[in-house]
Amino acid sequence: TPDVAERTSVPGVATGLAVTGMGGDVLYVETSVATGEPGLTVTGQLGDVMKESARIALSWVRSHADELGIPASAFERSIHVHFPAGAVPKDGPSAGVTMVTALVSLLTGRPVRSDIAMTGEVTLSGRVLPIGGVKQKLLAAQRAGVAEVFIPERNRPDLDDVPAEILEQLTVTPVGAVTEILERALVQAAAGAEGVAGEGGVAAA
Amino acid sequence: TPDVAERTSVPGVATGLAVTGMGGDVLYVETSVATGEPGLTVTGQLGDVMKESARIALSWVRSHADELGIPASAFERSIHVHFPAGAVPKDGPSAGVTMVTALVSLLTGRPVRSDIAMTGEVTLSGRVLPIGGVKQKLLAAQRAGVAEVFIPERNRPDLDDVPAEILEQLTVTPVGAVTEILERALVQAAAGAEGVAGEGGVAAA
Amino acid sequence: TPDVAERTSVPGVATGLAVTGMGGDVLYVETSVATGEPGLTVTGQLGDVMKESARIALSWVRSHADELGIPASAFERSIHVHFPAGAVPKDGPSAGVTMVTALVSLLTGRPVRSDIAMTGEVTLSGRVLPIGGVKQKLLAAQRAGVAEVFIPERNRPDLDDVPAEILEQLTVTPVGAVTEILERALVQAAAGAEGVAGEGGVAAA
Amino acid sequence: TPDVAERTSVPGVATGLAVTGMGGDVLYVETSVATGEPGLTVTGQLGDVMKESARIALSWVRSHADELGIPASAFERSIHVHFPAGAVPKDGPSAGVTMVTALVSLLTGRPVRSDIAMTGEVTLSGRVLPIGGVKQKLLAAQRAGVAEVFIPERNRPDLDDVPAEILEQLTVTPVGAVTEILERALVQAAAGAEGVAGEGGVAAA
Amino acid sequence: TPDVAERTSVPGVATGLAVTGMGGDVLYVETSVATGEPGLTVTGQLGDVMKESARIALSWVRSHADELGIPASAFERSIHVHFPAGAVPKDGPSAGVTMVTALVSLLTGRPVRSDIAMTGEVTLSGRVLPIGGVKQKLLAAQRAGVAEVFIPERNRPDLDDVPAEILEQLTVTPVGAVTEILERALVQAAAGAEGVAGEGGVAAA
Amino acid sequence: TPDVAERTSVPGVATGLAVTGMGGDVLYVETSVATGEPGLTVTGQLGDVMKESARIALSWVRSHADELGIPASAFERSIHVHFPAGAVPKDGPSAGVTMVTALVSLLTGRPVRSDIAMTGEVTLSGRVLPIGGVKQKLLAAQRAGVAEVFIPERNRPDLDDVPAEILEQLTVTPVGAVTEILERALVQAAAGAEGVAGEGGVAAA
Ligand SMILES: [Ca+2]
Ligand SMILES: [Ca+2]
Ligand SMILES: [Ca+2]
Ligand SMILES: [Ca+2]
Ligand SMILES: [Ca+2]
Ligand SMILES: [Ca+2]
Ligand SMILES: [Ca+2]
Ligand SMILES: [Ca+2]
Ligand SMILES: [Ca+2]
Ligand SMILES: [Ca+2]
Ligand SMILES: [Ca+2]
Ligand SMILES: [Ca+2]
Repeated sequence: TPDVAERTSVPGVATGLAVTGMGGDVLYVETSVATGEPGLTVTGQLGDVMKESARIALSWVRSHADELGIPASAFERSIHVHFPAGAVPKDGPSAGVTMVTALVSLLTGRPVRSDIAMTGEVTLSGRVLPIGGVKQKLLAAQRAGVAEVFIPERNRPDLDDVPAEILEQLTVTPVGAVTEILERALVQAAAGAEGVAGEGGVAAA
Repeated sequence: TPDVAERTSVPGVATGLAVTGMGGDVLYVETSVATGEPGLTVTGQLGDVMKESARIALSWVRSHADELGIPASAFERSIHVHFPAGAVPKDGPSAGVTMVTALVSLLTGRPVRSDIAMTGEVTLSGRVLPIGGVKQKLLAAQRAGVAEVFIPERNRPDLDDVPAEILEQLTVTPVGAVTEILERALVQAAAGAEGVAGEGGVAAA
Repeated sequence: TPDVAERTSVPGVATGLAVTGMGGDVLYVETSVATGEPGLTVTGQLGDVMKESARIALSWVRSHADELGIPASAFERSIHVHFPAGAVPKDGPSAGVTMVTALVSLLTGRPVRSDIAMTGEVTLSGRVLPIGGVKQKLLAAQRAGVAEVFIPERNRPDLDDVPAEILEQLTVTPVGAVTEILERALVQAAAGAEGVAGEGGVAAA
Repeated sequence: TPDVAERTSVPGVATGLAVTGMGGDVLYVETSVATGEPGLTVTGQLGDVMKESARIALSWVRSHADELGIPASAFERSIHVHFPAGAVPKDGPSAGVTMVTALVSLLTGRPVRSDIAMTGEVTLSGRVLPIGGVKQKLLAAQRAGVAEVFIPERNRPDLDDVPAEILEQLTVTPVGAVTEILERALVQAAAGAEGVAGEGGVAAA
Repeated sequence: TPDVAERTSVPGVATGLAVTGMGGDVLYVETSVATGEPGLTVTGQLGDVMKESARIALSWVRSHADELGIPASAFERSIHVHFPAGAVPKDGPSAGVTMVTALVSLLTGRPVRSDIAMTGEVTLSGRVLPIGGVKQKLLAAQRAGVAEVFIPERNRPDLDDVPAEILEQLTVTPVGAVTEILERALVQAAAGAEGVAGEGGVAAA
Repeated sequence: TPDVAERTSVPGVATGLAVTGMGGDVLYVETSVATGEPGLTVTGQLGDVMKESARIALSWVRSHADELGIPASAFERSIHVHFPAGAVPKDGPSAGVTMVTALVSLLTGRPVRSDIAMTGEVTLSGRVLPIGGVKQKLLAAQRAGVAEVFIPERNRPDLDDVPAEILEQLTVTPVGAVTEILERALVQAAAGAEGVAGEGGVAAA
């Protein structure tokens, strides 16, 4: 997946999955932080639910900064969350886990593994709630060359409807808490070549 | 009620009851607090009445911080109240007592007992006003495995319409003031195993 | 009037009178103050006129703080004015005097006498302007067990339409300035039993 | 004019003139100032034009504070401009001179003469522009017992349409600049009995 | 042009030209500055384009403060831009040069020559873009007794449609940059009688 | 291209390309910065997508300030982005690269080469996404005398539809990252005549 690998090589970018009018598609979230007035800017023609989802993601990261190894001062800057393409309207809660992962990546400096994608609503306490379109999203992930996809635990029954040849090419990992994704999705910051390979590796994407 | 127990095991989460198009349902409120600009963020596609209800809950907690053992500095941080699921519109005043309970739990560090649920409008002076859908809410509480439900004192007459087999399985506690709920709903912060059991217990949920 | 007495026993709560689709009704206003960003929060599904009315009430109290014995620092906190029930839309200027009375009660710590109710628009200079529905409001006050009702001086002619048996059971006091209400409506802060009785008394409600 | 006299006896209140569905009417503007966050609050169900008019009035007073003898610190407080009655929608620029006069009265502590009324748009440089309804406004002023009315210089031709018996009972003073009104409308702050009489006098109203 | 002279005799006022339903008209812009919260207030029932035009004018002046001899502290005050008459809706970009000129006049203390008028969109880099209604605007300027009118260079071809007798009575000066207007439109601040005459002069207006 | 050269001779101005109802057109973006409250002002009757595009451009520049040689203090000022003509509504993400280029030019003091134009959506991580109307935009660039046009790499296939005689007169440079444009589009700040010539040169435009 050269495109996914290229786009997620810097910290702060993660790969989600969306249902569109034409099936599923990968959906990147990009984040940045800079000195400036503290606050959250959200762009990408997002609907109300998705904007709230960004607030929830940021609040979760902020209230778990200690465990995540993020200094409190990290939030005294201006944070920006963007979903390309900029002219395409987007909505829904299913990019919640993707935003949490991108923000933790950004603020810890650890890139997200480039061979993974994820989908799931995140709650303020970090639980992962079920979303729609699992089949279309897995098909899109497979088409994009993704190796592993994180889905909500409660969407496990939806795997029955996914063609076996897709499931053979993808590792699908159901999760109940967003911390389970973070443990597996982030490349070690100061990792040597082995460490990165052990996590799946950027080079392997 | 494994789901309720799991979701309310950390301070700041409480279980409410809602009337939906398909009868009643449990409705979680999650709260978090983090260093940041003082203010209240409310998410979950809430309507005007429910957003005001969050303001009322926070004002009541803030103006009773002393009695509740919450330091004034607790409110100089960024507080977030969220109602999953994020894409489902919600409205009405009946989650008032649930928000008060969740906020007091969050700011005192005392978890909410995992075997209880509650419903009731709260006023700025802490009174509990009647709400609708008592029957459906109690049915939902029973289905979810809840042991005790707090309802407004003024809804006591509505218990006549609730099937006897439901009332046999639930302790229904009518209250006139939100403080009556707080006295019974919060697990002791530094409680030993016995103390928690005495309150009903997280483990027992 | 046990309900009125119960609800107005703490400083900051006053009893107004409203015209509803089904005649008149008592209408409580609750106020609270807490350390926090200075400002006024208004809840209870209020319309534009009623929101402005709250601003006028607060401005009058603030600009007369000296005469009222309220320190200027009292306004450097977060003030909240709420009208239960939270889901019922309310509008109009006639709760102006009630809000002034509740705010002065809150900020002086003197409870409002529990046997009174009041109605009247207040202007920024403290004058009391006439309102509608005098008859329905007095009937509602009598039903609620109120002993004395303050109405605008300019509504005195409307008393002709009120049944004699109602007027026999109510003391109706027309006023031209909100200060006339304050002089009679607030219980003395450090009052002994006699002082309170002299004002009508909480116990007598 | 007992009502006008009563209402304008404190600094910060001035009497304007409005055209209503039923002819003309007097229109009071009340202003107050209090310690608090600097800013302008405007109430009375005002339309866009009238809200802008309040901004213009305040900017003119603020940028001429020196000449008017108002300390700059006067504007570091919270200023409120209100037009009773609170539920009646109002709009238009013709209360501009009335707001300037009320604000200067408020901030200098000099009451407005109680026997006058005024109408006219004010511009940011203090010029008085013509308004509509001169005839109806003068009739209303006469009915209210007003002795002198300030109108825009450019409305002088409209006096041809005003009945002679009205003009006999009113002093109509056309003005081109708002300063001409201020020179005549404000009672001397520390005035002795003669001084006040020389200005027309509160007692004479 | 006594009216124009009178209205532009203080710094901060400039004369523009507008197209109305009844041909062209002169359009004054008034500006003021006062101690207070930094910011721009715009009044006169302006549409979106005209409000943006005010922002552009202020940004241009602010980013060229050095060359214009305006201290940076001048912008730490509250600036107000008003277009009388207050109840007439106005829109369009063509008052851009007029606003720049009025603001520079205000902040340098140099009045605008009272015998000139101007029209033209201004860009953020100070270029003057073409506008509509040149013929009607020049007719209005001539009627108002204006001696010189600045128009955009790119509107020069429109002069073909202007009656010769109008052009005989007006000096029409096409400009490509707003600085060309500033060089000619502002009276010298500390100018002696000769200097002012050399610029056209207030007295000569 | 005298117009393009003239308009882009100062730092902070760049030339984009737009599709209009009448084919393509050049579209200037002008930027300015001044002491003042930190923030971004955007004008030119921009739609939602284009406003978000400005936020993205600024966030990218801000979070890459170090590499770009821009001091962090540069962003503690008031930044303004304007698209003339002010009355023409504009929307879409395709001016993203143009805004990035103009902002970097402004904040580094290096003018943009006057013989170039560009089009492309920019993402928060600096990638250049495809846009529409390549053919019309290149025709417009050629008509305006532009020498080199930067387009998104992913729009390379659209060049098949562009007439050969246009491509003979234009250097079309597909790019995948906005940094590729910055490397070629900005004139050296302290450049001698040779250096500027080496970049294409302002004088050569
Ligand atoms: Ca929506
Ligand atoms: Ca997703
Ligand atoms: Ca609603
Ligand atoms: Ca509930
Ligand atoms: Ca309304
Ligand atoms: Ca009332
Ligand atoms: Ca309007
Ligand atoms: Ca008036
Ligand atoms: Ca518009
Ligand atoms: Ca103009
Ligand atoms: Ca849009
Ligand atoms: Ca473009």
